[in-house]
Amino acid sequence: TIVALLEQHFANGSLLKGKKVLVTAGPTREKLDPVRFFSNHSTGKMGYAIAEAAFAFGADVTLISGPTSLPDPHGVKTIRIESAQEMYEEVMNYFHDSDIVIKTAAVADYRPKYVAKDKIKKQPGDYTIVMERTVDILKALGEQKTKQFLVGFAAETNDVERYAKNKLESKNADMIVANNVVQAGAGFGTDTNIVTLFKRDGSKKELPLLPKSEVAKEILLEICRELEAIV
Amino acid sequence: TIVALLEQHFANGSLLKGKKVLVTAGPTREKLDPVRFFSNHSTGKMGYAIAEAAFAFGADVTLISGPTSLPDPHGVKTIRIESAQEMYEEVMNYFHDSDIVIKTAAVADYRPKYVAKDKIKKQPGDYTIVMERTVDILKALGEQKTKQFLVGFAAETNDVERYAKNKLESKNADMIVANNVVQAGAGFGTDTNIVTLFKRDGSKKELPLLPKSEVAKEILLEICRELEAIV
Repeated sequence: TIVALLEQHFANGSLLKGKKVLVTAGPTREKLDPVRFFSNHSTGKMGYAIAEAAFAFGADVTLISGPTSLPDPHGVKTIRIESAQEMYEEVMNYFHDSDIVIKTAAVADYRPKYVAKDKIKKQPGDYTIVMERTVDILKALGEQKTKQFLVGFAAETNDVERYAKNKLESKNADMIVANNVVQAGAGFGTDTNIVTLFKRDGSKKELPLLPKSEVAKEILLEICRELEAIV
Repeated sequence: TIVALLEQHFANGSLLKGKKVLVTAGPTREKLDPVRFFSNHSTGKMGYAIAEAAFAFGADVTLISGPTSLPDPHGVKTIRIESAQEMYEEVMNYFHDSDIVIKTAAVADYRPKYVAKDKIKKQPGDYTIVMERTVDILKALGEQKTKQFLVGFAAETNDVERYAKNKLESKNADMIVANNVVQAGAGFGTDTNIVTLFKRDGSKKELPLLPKSEVAKEILLEICRELEAIV
């Protein structure tokens, strides 16, 4: 059976042998001054699980990670960055050589337009921060891709399917892994996730509540099916 | 000698026996929407080191901590909070019963005035975030203190002494521990620190580069000297 074939492939860890897999993970931090920044609740667990699973599948794995408290995964080349701009630059260093790119990182969409050199002292009353857009890394990759199988993540709090399908098209991605980050058992910081995979043929595959390590394997198996057309 | 006396006190861990010590540590996170927040680079190491040292000195220690990746210190009642407002409420629950209050936490001075219920979708162009002041916890404690010995921290990037002395007066604190967070070996995330203690009599005490565990002991010894007038 297909399952047995996959189990066998997985057992000997050859399913992604010879493939270069690029994974991004964690949040980014966008400085406002030397001590303050904008960030988000991503902990990097989903991306690290994918990097580990890809290594177990035999791939040559590079992980580009924002600030997390997780150790570098065994066998994975891990590069640490802080900001969206640094993430963009490191991803571009590895993109063209990659076969599969899986962007789990929760990269900031906006950053403070003006970064103060010294710590901003508090004053009475309100103040406003002007935010500017960061580079859209997934979009840039979708425009430049040649052989790469490009997977994006969509962490949403509402209208998950609509945003995911829109992202698949507008970013020229090959797959979007979507989750509702306010659903119990899914999203940031948890050890489990509930995701739906959206593909370019319009189909979707809903996965049940699973440990992130299992979600990682299912995503990689689905990518393998797409690449090899073994199903 | 005084040092021998202190060593002896410290050795038997009785220097703060019977004292209730309240320590705050770590950053706070101020939500912009369900996934994004403002924060700062505090890792909680200095505060956790003080809580551990106070426990070793025989005190009854409560630690109120923002999000950190550090485990709860052994023997210390640890309460986890996220926002400046939650920090304020928990500190107030413990303040009146405390003998010594050491505020190492890097509590946000500002928070987004409007918190979005759903994740804010990105749009082309800039946008502005209106920030409002959070409650000034140190100031509130300075106004309400009775028996408490109140210690504040000043993490500055410039004009450290001026800001520290001003903070001592304006917050009615008994001691300000100041450091320049951009100095090598000091500040956020490091395992060492370089601090100066400013006291109400106008005197200051500069400590050399030390592990945060040693800085913690020196701060507590200085508090003991002030409380007991043993020097």
